[in-house]
Formats: sequence, C-alpha cells, structure tokens
Amino acid sequence: MKQIRVDLPQSAYSIVIGENRLNQVGEYLRQWTQAGEKLPHCIVVTDTNVEPLYAQTVGNALAESGAEVDLCVVEAGEESKCVEVVSSLWERCIECGADRRTVLVAVGGGVVGDLTGFAAASLLRGVRFVQVPTSLLAMVDSSVGGKTGINLPQGKNLVGAFWQPIGVLADTRTLATLDERQYRSGLAEVVKYGVILDADFFTWLENHVPEILAHDDAVLTHIVSRCCELKAQIVLEDERETSGRRALLNYGHTFGHAVEKLCGYGTVLHGEGVGIGMTYAARLAQSLHPERTQLEELCQRQENLLKALGIPTEAPQLDHASAVAVMKHDKKAQNGEIRFILPKNLGDCELEPVIL
Amino acid sequence: MKQIRVDLPQSAYSIVIGENRLNQVGEYLRQWTQAGEKLPHCIVVTDTNVEPLYAQTVGNALAESGAEVDLCVVEAGEESKCVEVVSSLWERCIECGADRRTVLVAVGGGVVGDLTGFAAASLLRGVRFVQVPTSLLAMVDSSVGGKTGINLPQGKNLVGAFWQPIGVLADTRTLATLDERQYRSGLAEVVKYGVILDADFFTWLENHVPEILAHDDAVLTHIVSRCCELKAQIVLEDERETSGRRALLNYGHTFGHAVEKLCGYGTVLHGEGVGIGMTYAARLAQSLHPERTQLEELCQRQENLLKALGIPTEAPQLDHASAVAVMKHDKKAQNGEIRFILPKNLGDCELEPVIL
Repeated sequence: MKQIRVDLPQSAYSIVIGENRLNQVGEYLRQWTQAGEKLPHCIVVTDTNVEPLYAQTVGNALAESGAEVDLCVVEAGEESKCVEVVSSLWERCIECGADRRTVLVAVGGGVVGDLTGFAAASLLRGVRFVQVPTSLLAMVDSSVGGKTGINLPQGKNLVGAFWQPIGVLADTRTLATLDERQYRSGLAEVVKYGVILDADFFTWLENHVPEILAHDDAVLTHIVSRCCELKAQIVLEDERETSGRRALLNYGHTFGHAVEKLCGYGTVLHGEGVGIGMTYAARLAQSLHPERTQLEELCQRQENLLKALGIPTEAPQLDHASAVAVMKHDKKAQNGEIRFILPKNLGDCELEPVIL
Repeated sequence: MKQIRVDLPQSAYSIVIGENRLNQVGEYLRQWTQAGEKLPHCIVVTDTNVEPLYAQTVGNALAESGAEVDLCVVEAGEESKCVEVVSSLWERCIECGADRRTVLVAVGGGVVGDLTGFAAASLLRGVRFVQVPTSLLAMVDSSVGGKTGINLPQGKNLVGAFWQPIGVLADTRTLATLDERQYRSGLAEVVKYGVILDADFFTWLENHVPEILAHDDAVLTHIVSRCCELKAQIVLEDERETSGRRALLNYGHTFGHAVEKLCGYGTVLHGEGVGIGMTYAARLAQSLHPERTQLEELCQRQENLLKALGIPTEAPQLDHASAVAVMKHDKKAQNGEIRFILPKNLGDCELEPVIL
C-alpha cells in the first residue's frame, strides 16, 4: 500500500493506492469521524458497467461499517457528463435525505468522478466526496486535483468547479476487468507525465513496455503512485490553474479535445485524443521552434512509446480547419489565441499562445 | 456614497451604496484592470422586468467605457432559479465567447443575483461576477456574502455554491420603481438584522416607520449600509456557514421557506415568508423557554414593527403538519432535527436544534 499526501492549505487529503482495498472503504471513511461516532450517510454514485463489478462491494463495505448507504447508478459513457444527469443526481440525493454531512462516493472512471465531484460541489452549496477510481485514467489523472465538471453541447468540461475530494482510494485490482482499449487510453496520460515533467519516468516506461502491456501489478502500483505524486505536486503549486503551472497538465488536451469532439465523444476515447494531441503538439513545437534540435528525438521517442503501448497517434480523417475552430472555443483560449502546451525537452514544457 | 469592505482572505471586495451610480459601472469595473488595459468582456444578466429599466443603462455604461458587452435576459420570477434556466445561461455565455476573464454582471433582484452567481461559479469552473442589486431584498441580503444557487422541485436553494462577487454596486434610486409589495417584503430582512444582531438598529427602525414607508432616500441609504455592515461582519466570521455563526442570518427562514413552498413560490414572497417565519420562531422560542420573560416584549415589538411596515406575520391557511414535513427537508436539518434560529433577547439569538 502506498499513500500520497496532497497538502492543500484549505483541503488536505491523501491518495491511497494498493491492491484489494475496496472492502476497507468503511474503515477508510472512519478517519473523518470522532471516536464512537457513526459513519456519515453515504451515497455511492457509479455507472451501469461498474455497479455489478465494484460499486456493490463498496456499498456493502460501507454498510458493514455502520453507514447508511444509498446507491445512484448512471448510464456508462461520456454522455452522462451532462446537465440532465447531474440534475437527476441532485434530485436523487435530496430524495435519499442528503444533508450537509452526507458523503458522495464516486466509484468508477473519469466520467463518474467528474460528474459526482460537480454534484458534490454544488449540492447544498457543497458536500464532501470520496473518489474510488476504477479506471487507469481516473487513477492517474481525473480523480486527483479537484477538477470536476460536466460537458455542454458546445464542448467538454465547460461547466464545473474546483472541488477537492476528502480522499482518493485507488485499488489497482479493479484494472484487471478494465477493457483493453480503455486501459491503453489511460496509458496516454501516463506517457504525458513523463514528457512534461519527468524524463526518468519516461525512460522507465520505455524499459517496461512488456510488463505494462501485461498489467503487471507491481508495475501498475509504481505507475499510479508516480503519476499521482507528479500531479499532486502541480496541484499544490497551482490549485486553480491561475499561474499557468497547472495548465502544463493539459499537454495534448487542446488538440485532443477537438479530436474527441469532431470524431464524436466515445468514438475516440479521451486518452486516445490525448495521444493524438501530444503527437500534434510535439510536431507543432518542432515547426514553431526549428532551433530546438532536441525536439526531433523527443517526437520520435514519444511516438514510438505511444505506438508500443497501442495508443493512436493520428486521426487521418480529421479536417484541420474544423479542429482549429473547435480549439478557439477551448476554455484555455483567450481572445482567439490558442494556448498550447509545447514540449521544450523531455520532462520540460511550456505554455505558448499560438495564433493558428 | 458609502463604501463597505468585505475583507475575506481569498476574495476581498467592496460594496458601494449610493444614488445614481448605474452609469458609473464602467468606471467601477476599471479597478480590476491594469492601466491602459481594455475592460474585460461583460455579460449583463437581467430579467424581463429590470431589462428596460436599468440593465440597458448598465450595458450602455459598460460599452461606453470600452467593454465588449453581451446581454442575457431571463423571465422575471422565482421560477427562473432552476436547472433549465442556468443551463441555458451557461450555453448562452459560451456562445457569446465567454472565457476565463469574462465578468458576469447581475442586474436585478435576488433571483437574478443568485442565478447569475451560480452560473459564474460553475462556468469554466468559475468566472468573476459583479452584483448590481435593484431590489431592497437583494441590496440588504442576497447580493452580499456569496451564497448563490438555484431551486430544485424538492425545495429552494438546494443547489449552488459559495462564490463571492468581485464587487457590489447598490444604487438606491432603483428602489423608486420597486413594486410596493416587493419593497415591504425586503423590509422583513431589514427587521431581521435588528432582531438577531442590533437592538439599537431595531429601535431606530421603530422610530423611522413613516420615512421608511415614504422611501426616504437618506433613510434608505442608512438602512442598506447598516444591513450590509452587519452581514459583512457575519460573513467574515463564518463564510461557509460551518461555525453556526452565519446560520443566524437564517432567522425566520426555516419556517419561511416552508410557507413559501406550501403556498407556492411567488404567491408568498420570500420576505413575506421571512416575516411569518420570524413571528413563528419568536413564539416557538417563547414556548420552549418560558423562563425567558423578555421574549414576551420581543414578540410584541417584532410583531408591531412588522405590521407597521405592512409585512404579513401569519399564514392562516397553512397546515402545520405539512410545514413540519417540509422543514425536515431543509438543508439545515440534520438527522431529522430541525435547526431553528431562536431569539434570546433583542439583538441576540442562537441556533437550537428542535424535534417537532
């Protein structure tokens, strides 16, 4: 078991990473109660895929520890990150008798986590929530850092809140049932951390491709831990993405979001969009800065590693003009300038406004 | 002109109170720009009643100061504080090209302020907003303190955020066009401040009933300023209503919300519900604490002042059992206990959990 502390001044919390932790979630919640006090009312939020696999285990564990437990199940898929679903979630929580001490428990991937986090941020002007990520993408990225939100027809994550969980419990065993395409999509975010922040970790990934593809438990625990450490550090430095530091985590995302939108959410998975976006961003950096000769090698190594891990690096059917139009609506765009994260060197990158 | 500072550590701002200030809103916004910088993109949010009266003045003043201005008009009335309207507002803002530097400007009463505040809190995970309250209720209460939100079918303000405005600009001249019933409804909140926090202010109100009923400008400026000072002090002590201190402002609201809900929002105005709720709460305090003999006089003076100001003190058609059932769903309820604010003495009150 590994524990990583996110020491935010207003809302410090820990990420616990290990195998077979789900049935301990009740004991885990006990840290927020006084000695002898009953566990708070919990509402487990999950989706139709994860419910039979893990949400019931989590619900049972909470009930066995004495919590009053309710369950809300949303349809699996990105389409659930919408106003209608968050609205039904708010209503369901009230009907379950939610009060200000209620804890929402998100059991699932990024969609469930983002949706539940925003529901928690806004229900009764803010209740607590716990993340129990069950996908690689959620473990290494979306469950950590407090970005919550839903999509609008105009684009992804256009509505939401910065709202920190009170804890994150990542059980690497849940990755055993993860669909192979979803797993590889999550690996795109893992490669991203190496490129933008940690050249040694990138090299380590290059040296462990077979173990990664085999879902080796020890390798996965290392990957999740290292990514969470890197992300926690960035979040500490710039929780609300105001200094530009946190924006670095959006490497590959500006173009990636456009790819997801134009190809259709779900047709291209988020991590696949990020893989394509990273490839695009690295090539863009190279064309804008031909003097940075090291970018040639970086582009090559990044593309090789993504391909070795089975992550797509291009979207051949994509219309470039439409992608640019979509990017100009990205919430990181300012006055029509598109703000790209561009690599300078392996493990080092910067934010650069570009007019395309 | 009077200026009151709300010195919150993360989000300090000022409340400016005076006559004929609306056409200076552009200059007012300039304090958030660097020397020589253009004003930010502004989206003025208002309702169908206030738009022709004041929102156009505000929009024109902003445009004359060089801001790019868009206008969103929602239907007047409490029904607009709902998921569907906030959702259309989010979409409209994106279509107007909102980015993270955009400022929403709420011009109207409590409904417009609460709705716009929540839209701002959640658009792009949080953009800035300014309150330009045009009703007495909004000036003395809802525009100050950062409580924003919308209603659900299950009850009022069940969804929202604590999100502070960057500034509040109250032009007392806008009260000239306020419907008399709305004006008197706002006075209920004014009386509330006297009862819970400031006996001298209560006595001052008793001594100025004719001027208050005549909408005397100097009297109104004093009232708005004193209420904002009292509210700002409470918000400083307990921004997120965690210590119980801020909960004192809910005096009259627990029963009042139930009255509003059962009689139909709009049938009973918010302030009317508060007037009825204060009368109920004071009598409840008296029956729970017969030893507090001073409550007899308090009940009498409170009822006299409310009646002198034309504020209702009872809802004869109300079914008591239904009201109790609604109060048990109030977000201040915990484990079925209803948390009432009960007066102890004029200018002094406390939170007391009651099982009805």
